[in-house]
Amino acid sequence: MNTFGQLLRLTTFGESHGPAIGGVLDGMPSGLKIDFDAVSAMMARRRPNSSAASTSRREADEPEFLSGIFNGVTTGTPIAFVIKNTDMRSADYSAISQAFRPCHADYTYEVKYGPHRDYRGGGRASARETAVRVVAGALAMQALRSYGVEVSAHVGSIGPLGADRKNEWAGFIERVRSAGDTVGGTVECEITGLPAGVGEPLFGKLQACLAAAMMSIPAAKGFEYGMGFEGSTMLGSEAMDRFNSDFTTATNHSGGIQGGISNGMPVTMRVAFKPVATLMRELPTVDREGRPVTIPPRGRHDVCVVPRAVPVVEAMAALVALDAILLNRSTRL
Amino acid sequence: MNTFGQLLRLTTFGESHGPAIGGVLDGMPSGLKIDFDAVSAMMARRRPNSSAASTSRREADEPEFLSGIFNGVTTGTPIAFVIKNTDMRSADYSAISQAFRPCHADYTYEVKYGPHRDYRGGGRASARETAVRVVAGALAMQALRSYGVEVSAHVGSIGPLGADRKNEWAGFIERVRSAGDTVGGTVECEITGLPAGVGEPLFGKLQACLAAAMMSIPAAKGFEYGMGFEGSTMLGSEAMDRFNSDFTTATNHSGGIQGGISNGMPVTMRVAFKPVATLMRELPTVDREGRPVTIPPRGRHDVCVVPRAVPVVEAMAALVALDAILLNRSTRL
Amino acid sequence: MNTFGQLLRLTTFGESHGPAIGGVLDGMPSGLKIDFDAVSAMMARRRPNSSAASTSRREADEPEFLSGIFNGVTTGTPIAFVIKNTDMRSADYSAISQAFRPCHADYTYEVKYGPHRDYRGGGRASARETAVRVVAGALAMQALRSYGVEVSAHVGSIGPLGADRKNEWAGFIERVRSAGDTVGGTVECEITGLPAGVGEPLFGKLQACLAAAMMSIPAAKGFEYGMGFEGSTMLGSEAMDRFNSDFTTATNHSGGIQGGISNGMPVTMRVAFKPVATLMRELPTVDREGRPVTIPPRGRHDVCVVPRAVPVVEAMAALVALDAILLNRSTRL
Amino acid sequence: MNTFGQLLRLTTFGESHGPAIGGVLDGMPSGLKIDFDAVSAMMARRRPNSSAASTSRREADEPEFLSGIFNGVTTGTPIAFVIKNTDMRSADYSAISQAFRPCHADYTYEVKYGPHRDYRGGGRASARETAVRVVAGALAMQALRSYGVEVSAHVGSIGPLGADRKNEWAGFIERVRSAGDTVGGTVECEITGLPAGVGEPLFGKLQACLAAAMMSIPAAKGFEYGMGFEGSTMLGSEAMDRFNSDFTTATNHSGGIQGGISNGMPVTMRVAFKPVATLMRELPTVDREGRPVTIPPRGRHDVCVVPRAVPVVEAMAALVALDAILLNRSTRL
Repeated sequence: MNTFGQLLRLTTFGESHGPAIGGVLDGMPSGLKIDFDAVSAMMARRRPNSSAASTSRREADEPEFLSGIFNGVTTGTPIAFVIKNTDMRSADYSAISQAFRPCHADYTYEVKYGPHRDYRGGGRASARETAVRVVAGALAMQALRSYGVEVSAHVGSIGPLGADRKNEWAGFIERVRSAGDTVGGTVECEITGLPAGVGEPLFGKLQACLAAAMMSIPAAKGFEYGMGFEGSTMLGSEAMDRFNSDFTTATNHSGGIQGGISNGMPVTMRVAFKPVATLMRELPTVDREGRPVTIPPRGRHDVCVVPRAVPVVEAMAALVALDAILLNRSTRL
Repeated sequence: MNTFGQLLRLTTFGESHGPAIGGVLDGMPSGLKIDFDAVSAMMARRRPNSSAASTSRREADEPEFLSGIFNGVTTGTPIAFVIKNTDMRSADYSAISQAFRPCHADYTYEVKYGPHRDYRGGGRASARETAVRVVAGALAMQALRSYGVEVSAHVGSIGPLGADRKNEWAGFIERVRSAGDTVGGTVECEITGLPAGVGEPLFGKLQACLAAAMMSIPAAKGFEYGMGFEGSTMLGSEAMDRFNSDFTTATNHSGGIQGGISNGMPVTMRVAFKPVATLMRELPTVDREGRPVTIPPRGRHDVCVVPRAVPVVEAMAALVALDAILLNRSTRL
Repeated sequence: MNTFGQLLRLTTFGESHGPAIGGVLDGMPSGLKIDFDAVSAMMARRRPNSSAASTSRREADEPEFLSGIFNGVTTGTPIAFVIKNTDMRSADYSAISQAFRPCHADYTYEVKYGPHRDYRGGGRASARETAVRVVAGALAMQALRSYGVEVSAHVGSIGPLGADRKNEWAGFIERVRSAGDTVGGTVECEITGLPAGVGEPLFGKLQACLAAAMMSIPAAKGFEYGMGFEGSTMLGSEAMDRFNSDFTTATNHSGGIQGGISNGMPVTMRVAFKPVATLMRELPTVDREGRPVTIPPRGRHDVCVVPRAVPVVEAMAALVALDAILLNRSTRL
Repeated sequence: MNTFGQLLRLTTFGESHGPAIGGVLDGMPSGLKIDFDAVSAMMARRRPNSSAASTSRREADEPEFLSGIFNGVTTGTPIAFVIKNTDMRSADYSAISQAFRPCHADYTYEVKYGPHRDYRGGGRASARETAVRVVAGALAMQALRSYGVEVSAHVGSIGPLGADRKNEWAGFIERVRSAGDTVGGTVECEITGLPAGVGEPLFGKLQACLAAAMMSIPAAKGFEYGMGFEGSTMLGSEAMDRFNSDFTTATNHSGGIQGGISNGMPVTMRVAFKPVATLMRELPTVDREGRPVTIPPRGRHDVCVVPRAVPVVEAMAALVALDAILLNRSTRL
C-alpha cells in the first residue's frame, strides 16, 4: 500500500536511516519539459532550516532522477528518483530500539511486522518520507500548470492562533520551543483553474481522494473542504451557492465540488496537524516488555511541522488533481 | 470508480429512478452465517420514517440477494444484491430536466458526461445509493463481530447544538422544517475491539482509508479522528497519550491509530454533514443555457440527513475495518 | 478478484444454480447508443442450441439492464445487468454434493473455501458465468465499432482437425457424442482497425492483457498471438516483418503488437480449449473422504464447447481493446 | 502500468541507457532472512556470458538494495533496489534515432508517446528490464521456499529442436550465429509444493495471472499450461486426470490447476519465445518519414534469448505464486 493514485501512481520507498528514500511516479504524461529548479525550490520549502519552527537536521534533499526523463522532457515511462540519506546519526536512536515512544508508530509497527522493524528515527513512519511526495508533487504541479491549474497552500493557524493573529505566530512558537514543547496547526489549500467536470462519482469523488491524500500525511488529524465542519452548523439557506449566468457561483461554500465532481470554482480545503510527539523533555514510556522507562530528549525535531507541511499538502493536492484530470479523459465516447 | 476497497471490494450501481440500485460485495470470507434480520434492522435505521427529520418517500429497501450465499452461509464468491426502486414518481422531476439545482450535482454531471445524464431525482448522485452501502456494511459488521470488533455511530450534533444540548434537537429540527429550511450536523463513530497492528503504512493508513470512505458519503464536508481539528490547537505535552504497562494508553487523543496502524485503543472519528440543499421553498437558479429560472419546492427531502447518515457511517467504517483486517493477514511471512 | 480491467471494469457475480448471474460494467464512456438487438444476437451465438455440439439445457439468457443506460444511451455510470437462472434442475446435482468430479473445480473450491461451496452445477466455476462476459463484451464491441475497431473470432480447429478439414467437423463431433466422449479445439480471434499506439508497456502489454483475459475463460489451456508457438521454431530472418512506407508491415508475424503496443496491423491470437471433463459415461472418482465412488452420467453438457466459446473470446478481446483505448488517452500531456 | 501483482506488487523503472534500472517490491512479508548470494546466483543465470547464445555486452547487474531490509531481514516495508547501467555505449545507437527498427518497439513507442522517447537501445522496451524482474523473483523464491514451494524452469526447445535433440542445440545455435541470424525457443516451468486451494476464481485464476506474467516478458509469443494446445486435440476421456484416494491425481494433464485454483499437483507451463529481431546483418527498414533506410548490423545482441529467459520465467512464476498464497489468506472467515 505504498502506491497512491489511479492513472498517475506514486510508489514510495525508504526508511529514515536507510541508504535512501525515493519514489517511482508512473503515468506522468509524455511531453512535459521539467523545470528542475522549480523542483528544488519546492523541496527547499519543505526542508528544515534555521527558522524557529524547524529541526536542525540537515537533509541533502536533492533528488537524483534515474528514468522517465530524456533530454529534460518526460517520456511517459516511470520517473524514478532517489534521495540519499546523508545525515544519518544512527547512534542517536540506539536508546529507542528497546522502548516504544508514546504517540509514535514504534509500538504499532512492532505489533504488525514483528521484531524486524527498522527502529532508527521512525524508520518508514518517519516524516522524512514526505520529501518523496514533494518531488512527485512538484512534477505534477508543472503538468497542471500546463493545463492552467494552480495548487497553492499556506499556514492557516498555529496552535490556537488563527490567521487574524498571524503576527503572533513566531513569538508563540519561540515560547513553545523554550518550554521544550511542540504545537500543531492547520494548512489551507486551494486548487484554482480546475475545469468543471473533473472527479469521479461515488468512491472516486474528488473530496474522497483529497481526504485520503491529506490524511496519509504524517500528523494529519482532520480534513475538511469548502465550508467543512462549520457547514454542519449551518442552515441550508445559508449554505446555498447561487448560480451566476456563466455557471460560476456567487459564493463557494461548496468548495468547488458538487457530487464529487469539480464545478469550476476554486477547490478549497483545510488540513489539521497535531503537535509533534517528540518533546525536548524526558518522556516516561514503556519498553518492549511494558516496563516503565524514560526516553531522554534526543534527536532533532520540529517544534511545529505546520510550515514544512505546506508543500506536502500542495504536493498531495497536485497528485490528486492531475490524476483526476487524466481519469476524466475516459469519461465520454 | 464505483468500487471501494482492496481485498473486500464493494461495487455499487444504480440511479435513484432507474429500475433498481444494488451492489456486489467481493472478497467477503467464506463461512459467515448471515443474520438477515440484522441486515433489515440496519436498513430500517437508514430508511426515511415519520420522524420530523425525514422525507416522506417510502422506500422498499429490502435487498434481494442473488449470489455468494448458500444455505445462509457466505461461500467466498461475490455477494450480489438488488434493491428495487418501487416508489419512483418520475413526474416530480420533469421540471428539473432543463435546470441545474444549486448545490446539487446536476451541473457537474452534465459537464462531465454530456447531455445523457439521468436527471431524475439526482440519478446516480442521489443519496439513495447509500442504501447499498448499508447492506454491504451490515454484512461486514457481522464478520467483524465474529472477530470481536464492533462499529457504532451516533449523532454528535444537529446544527449548532452539540451533545450537551441533545434534548433541544427535536424542537430545533421542527422549527427548521417549519421555515422550509434544512440543517446539517455531525456523526461520531467508534470502532472497538480492533486488535493492534491493523492498517497499512503510508497511503493505506487506517485514517486515510476511513477519510476516503466517509468523504465519499453524499453531503459529507469534513472528517477528523482522535483529537481531530482540536488537536491542531494543542501543545504536544497536552496531546500525549502515555502508555500503560499493558500497552493501552492512559488517554486516547490519538484515536486508536499510530502511523496509520491501530494501537488497540478504540478508533474514534467524526464526520461533518452539510445541510441538504433542497429546501421547501422556491429556489432561484439557472437553466442549461444559464438563464435565470425558479425551481418549485417539490420532491420529498430530509430536513436533516444526519440521523439517517448514522448507519451509513457505520457501514463505511465496517467495510474499511474488515478490509484492513484481511489485508493485515499478508503482513508476515 | 471478480473484477476485470483498469478503466473499463467488469465485475461479475452469480452461481450456476442460484437465483441469477450478472455483472456491473463500470467505466463505459457516456454517449453510446445501445443496440439491444445486437446484444441479443451475440448472446444467441453463445447459447446452447440444438446443434450436435451443445447441451440441451435451455437458458433464458436475456439480460435485464438495471442502471447506467437512460433513454437507450449510456450515461457513464455503472451498467448493471442480471440474467435469471430459470432452468435450474437442482435435483440433477444432488449426487455430486458429496463427491469430487475429476477435472472439475469441486475439490479445489472445497479446499479453498471450506464446506460452504455451492456444489450445484459447478456453482461459481460453471461456464454459465461466460454469459455475463458476452453481455459486457457486446457493449464493448459497440463502443469499439464507433471508433472503427472490429473484433471477430471463429473456430480454428476441432480436436485434431484444422481449418483445412473443416467439412469433417460435424461428423467428427457426432462420432464423439455417440461414444459419450467430448473433444477440445481452438478459437482464432482478430482485432482490426485498432490504431497504432494502444497498449501499455511492461505489465500492461496488450498481449499480457489479452492472455489474462483469454486464460480466465473456463477450459482455456493456451494462448498465443501473432506467430505464437510456431515463432519459437523460426529464425529471426524468417520472422521479420518489414515496414512499408506507410508504416504497415509486409507480413504480420508480430500479430499487430510491438513492445506491448499496437502497431496498426490486425491483432491476431489463438486460444486452446480442452475437452469438457463431463463425459456421458459413468465416471470413477472419489468422495470427500477420498473413497472411490462412481458418478452417473447425468447433467446436460456440451460435447464440444469450442463453437460456443467464440463469442466469449470476442467479448474478452473487446473488453481488453476498449480498456486499452481508454487508458491510452492519458499517455500524452 | 509498470506495476505487477495484487498484494505482492513489483513496480519497475528504467531505460536501457539511462542512469539505472530498478524496482520496488511492495508487500513482501516481514521476517524473511535474505540470501543475497542466491540473488546474485539467479542474476548470473540471466546475465549475458561468453556462451555462444549471448550478447557480448557486459552488464554490472548487482542490485543495490535501498530499503525494506534491516539487518538482512525483510521488514514488511517496500524493498527498493537499483541496478546501475554502467556499460552504456550510447554512440552505438545514434543511427537508430531517426529510423524504426523492424519488429522492435521503436515505431509503436513513437506513435504512443510522441517524439520524446528514449531511442537508445530500446529504451524502456529493452529486455534489460528483465534484470529487475529477476531480482524481485529471487526474493519471492526465497519466501516461497520457506513455505515449501519451489519454482524451476529450463529450456524446452531451441528453434525446431525439442528436448529429445538437446545435444544438437549448441551446434545449431553456432550455425545460426555464423549466418548472422537468430532463433527462438521455449521455456518450461514447474511450480512444486504449492498447496491445494491457491488461486482466485474468475479473473484471478492462477493460469490467467501466470499467462499475464509470462506474456509481459519481452519476445514471449505464447503461453500454455498443463496439456496446453495439445489438449485442444484430445478427447475428454484421454485428458481425464483420475483422483487417487489422497486427492492427488494419477495424471496431470490439468497442470495442477482446476477452476483457477491449485489442486496440489505440480503447476506446469510452457512459454514460447520468438527469435530476436536484431540480426547481425544490414536491415532494410524505414525512417520517421517512411523513407527506406538501411540499419547497419551494430549493437550487442543474443543469437538466442531462450537460455537467459529461464530465470526470468522463474521470477515471474514466483511472483505470481507468492502473491496467490498471500491472497488466499483472506479467503476464509
